[in-house]
Amino acid sequence: MQKEIEGWDQVENLCAIEDWITLSSYIASLSSQESSLIFSRLKPETQRSVLTHLDPENAAQLMELLDESVAVDALEELTPKEAASILYEVESDEQADLITELDPEDAEAILAEMPKDDADSLRKLSAYPFDCAGGLMRSEFLAYSDQTTVGGIVSDFLANREAYSGYHVQYIYVTDELGKLAGVLRIRDLLLSPHEESISKIMIENPVSIGAETTLKDLAVFFAAHRLFALPVTSQDGKLVGVLRRADVEEALGDEAQEAFLKSQGIIGGEEIRSMPTLTRSGRRLSWLSVNILLNIASASVIAFYQDVLAAAIALAVFLPIISDMSGCSGNQAVAVSIRELTLGLVRPFEIWRVLIKEMAVGLINGLVLGILISTVAFLWKGDLMLGLVVGTALGVNTVVAVLIGGTIPLILKRFEFDPALASGPILTTLTDMLGFFMALTLAANFLL
Amino acid sequence: MQKEIEGWDQVENLCAIEDWITLSSYIASLSSQESSLIFSRLKPETQRSVLTHLDPENAAQLMELLDESVAVDALEELTPKEAASILYEVESDEQADLITELDPEDAEAILAEMPKDDADSLRKLSAYPFDCAGGLMRSEFLAYSDQTTVGGIVSDFLANREAYSGYHVQYIYVTDELGKLAGVLRIRDLLLSPHEESISKIMIENPVSIGAETTLKDLAVFFAAHRLFALPVTSQDGKLVGVLRRADVEEALGDEAQEAFLKSQGIIGGEEIRSMPTLTRSGRRLSWLSVNILLNIASASVIAFYQDVLAAAIALAVFLPIISDMSGCSGNQAVAVSIRELTLGLVRPFEIWRVLIKEMAVGLINGLVLGILISTVAFLWKGDLMLGLVVGTALGVNTVVAVLIGGTIPLILKRFEFDPALASGPILTTLTDMLGFFMALTLAANFLL
Repeated sequence: MQKEIEGWDQVENLCAIEDWITLSSYIASLSSQESSLIFSRLKPETQRSVLTHLDPENAAQLMELLDESVAVDALEELTPKEAASILYEVESDEQADLITELDPEDAEAILAEMPKDDADSLRKLSAYPFDCAGGLMRSEFLAYSDQTTVGGIVSDFLANREAYSGYHVQYIYVTDELGKLAGVLRIRDLLLSPHEESISKIMIENPVSIGAETTLKDLAVFFAAHRLFALPVTSQDGKLVGVLRRADVEEALGDEAQEAFLKSQGIIGGEEIRSMPTLTRSGRRLSWLSVNILLNIASASVIAFYQDVLAAAIALAVFLPIISDMSGCSGNQAVAVSIRELTLGLVRPFEIWRVLIKEMAVGLINGLVLGILISTVAFLWKGDLMLGLVVGTALGVNTVVAVLIGGTIPLILKRFEFDPALASGPILTTLTDMLGFFMALTLAANFLL
Repeated sequence: MQKEIEGWDQVENLCAIEDWITLSSYIASLSSQESSLIFSRLKPETQRSVLTHLDPENAAQLMELLDESVAVDALEELTPKEAASILYEVESDEQADLITELDPEDAEAILAEMPKDDADSLRKLSAYPFDCAGGLMRSEFLAYSDQTTVGGIVSDFLANREAYSGYHVQYIYVTDELGKLAGVLRIRDLLLSPHEESISKIMIENPVSIGAETTLKDLAVFFAAHRLFALPVTSQDGKLVGVLRRADVEEALGDEAQEAFLKSQGIIGGEEIRSMPTLTRSGRRLSWLSVNILLNIASASVIAFYQDVLAAAIALAVFLPIISDMSGCSGNQAVAVSIRELTLGLVRPFEIWRVLIKEMAVGLINGLVLGILISTVAFLWKGDLMLGLVVGTALGVNTVVAVLIGGTIPLILKRFEFDPALASGPILTTLTDMLGFFMALTLAANFLL
C-alpha cells in the first residue's frame, strides 16, 4: 500500500487551491517520465488547468512527452485559442500527428487560431497519411536559392540565430528558381569555402531525395541501405516540402512493432492505456472477443457433433483442451516468425511454398516430439495404450497442420491487404481447433469404442 | 509457382562458374532489400565466396543490411583475416554488435588481424552490454582540445576531408587536458566566429552528457524529454568515450518491441528466421512448447479429477475448450496492455493495486457480456437453462479473474526481473484454465446432476 502523497494528488491539490506558481515549479522539477505518468492520471479538468497555467512553451514540451492519445484528449479539453498557442510551440511532425488525431472540427477550429501561413503548412503536413514520408517529415529545414553565396548564408545564420536554434541542421538544401530541389550542402563544406563562392558551386548536385508518398516500409529499407542522417522530401512536382530524419523513421517502426504486439493479443487499433475511460477500453476489447467467441463456438461444435463418442471415451475429454491449446501455441510461433520475416523483407507475400517447406521440417520434428510426449503421458496416466496413440496422433498431426497454417496465414492476409497481426491468431486457432477435435474424436470412434 | 530464375540461383550460378566480375555488378544492381533477402538464402559456401570477392567496402555495406544473425553466421565462414578486412569497414556500433555475437574465440582471432588501436577501441565498445549507452554509441566523433582555435578546426577539416566524410557530424566535442568532456560546439557556430577565436570561448559549457552505463529505458526517457540529435557519452571518470544518436536509440527500442512480440508468441530469445538450420529452429520452439505442454497437463488434470461429473453432464464438454480459450484471450489483452504501459513508463512495477482496480472495471463488463452470450448460446443450443447458467457463470467469473491475473503478472515478473513477454502467457493460461475447468465442473456437480 502506498501511503505517501503521489504526484498526481499534489497536482490536483495545487490546482484546487489555484497556486499556479508552485504548480509550475513543481512540474518543472519532475523528470520527463514522472511528468508524463502524472499528467496522464489527472482529471480532465485538472489537465486543462495545468496546460493553461504553464507557459505555452513548457506546455508544448509536456505535450511532446505524452502518449499521443493522452495529448489529444487533453487538447480537446482546451479552447481552440488555448490549444493553438500550445500547439504552435510543438515540433512540426508532432503537430501534424496531433492535428490528424483530433476531431476534424476541433482541428479546424484550432488551425483558425494559428497564423495563416503556419496553419496552411500544417494542413498540408497533416493531409499525408501518418505512415509515409510526408506524414513523418518535419517542415523546419533550411533551404536557400542556388543564387546564394556562402557569405549570404553566414549572414542569414547570424540574423536568425535564435529562430534556427530549434532546427536540427545537418544539411542545407538548395533550390532552383521553381522551388525544386537542386542540391545539398553540408554545413562543414561552408566552413571550407570563401564567402564570395556561390553555393551552387559547392553543393552536391542531384542529391538523394524521396517522394512524400514513400511508405514506411520502403523508408526502412532505404535508411538501412544509406548511411544518411536525414533526407529531403519532395512532392510529385519535385518541390522540396520537408526533411525526414532517420530517427523519425526508426521511431515510427518501433511504434508499429509495439502496435503489432498489442493487436496480436486482441487489442484492436493497437492502442490502449488504462487512463482511457472504462467503456472505451471494454468496448474495444469486447469487439475482438465477441468475434472470437463465435469462432470458438464454431470449432466447439465439432465436439458437440461427436458428443456420444466423447461420452463413451470420456478419458479423452482431458486431452481435448491440451490439443487445442498446444496446436494454437505451435501455430502462433509460426505466425510470429512470418510477421517478423515480412517486416524485415526476408519473405515476400507470394512465397507460400517456401514457408510451407520450411515449416514442414520444423512441424514434423515438433509434432513427433509432442505427439510422443502426450502419448506417453496419456498411457502412463490412464493405462490405455490406444488412448495414448489416439491423443498422440491427433496432437502430432495437428502440430504439423498448425505450423503450416500459422506460417502461411500472415502472407495470405498481407497479400489481400488485411492486417496479419490482428487476424492471424483467431483464424489459426479456429482452424486448428476444428481439425484437432475432429481427428481426436474420429480416431476415438474408430479405435477406442 | 515461380518459374523465373530467382536472384539466389543467379548468385549461386555465378559463384559456381567463378565469374566474379558479373557477380559484383549483379550485386551492385540489387536494391538493398533484394540483396539482404538473396544473401540470407545462399548456401554458406556461396555466402563466403560473395563476401570474399566483393571489395571489403561493398562487403561491409552488405553486412550492415543483413539481419544480425545472418551476418554473424556469414562472418564465421570466413578466415579471421578476411573477416577483419570487412569488419574494419563497418560502422563502429555495428562492429561492436557483431563482435559481441561472434563466438569469443572467433572474435579474438578477428580482432588480432585488425590494427591494434582499432582492435582495442572495438574491444572496449563490445565490453558494454548491447542495451546501454556504451553498447549503442559509436566511436566515430570529432573532439578537439579546448586549446584549439576555430581556424585550427577548419584546417583539420580540410586535411581530413575524406576521412571525416563518413562521420555524422552535427556537434563537435571539446575536451580538457585530461580528456574529459568540457563543451560542445555546433558546426554552424564555427561559421559565425573569426578563425583566431579559441573554441573554448564559443563552446557551450557543461553540456548534457550521459554515462556509458545508462540503460536503454532511461535513454528512451531522456531522448523523449530533450530535442537532441545526439549526445556525448562519458565513462565513469568523465572521459568522452562515444556519441549516441537518437536514431540508434529509436532503432534499439524498435528491435526490443519486435523481440517482445516474438517472445510473447513463444519464440525464446525473440529471434528466428527461416534460413536458420531446422534443428535450431525446432529446438528453440520445442523448449518453450515442452514447458507449456506440462503446464497444460497440469491444468487438464482438473478435468481428469472431475471425469465422472463430465461423463454425467457430457454437454459441458463442448464448452470447456471455449472457457479455456476465451479466458486466455481476455487475460492476454490485459497482459499486452500492461507490457505496453511498463514500456512507456505509464505504470510502475509496484502499482499492482491500480492495475487491479482498472482491470476489475473492464473485467466485470466483459465478463458479464461474454457470460450472458455463452449462456444464451448454451441454452438455445442444448435447451437446458441450467447448463447455460453454469457455463455462463464459469466464463463470466473466469473472465474477471483472467484480466486481473493478466494485468498484474507482467508487473510482478518485472519486479522480480523476469521477462514479462516470455513468461506471462503460459502462467496466465495455466491459472485460468485450472480455475475455469474447476468452476464449470463443480457448478455442474452441484446444479446439473
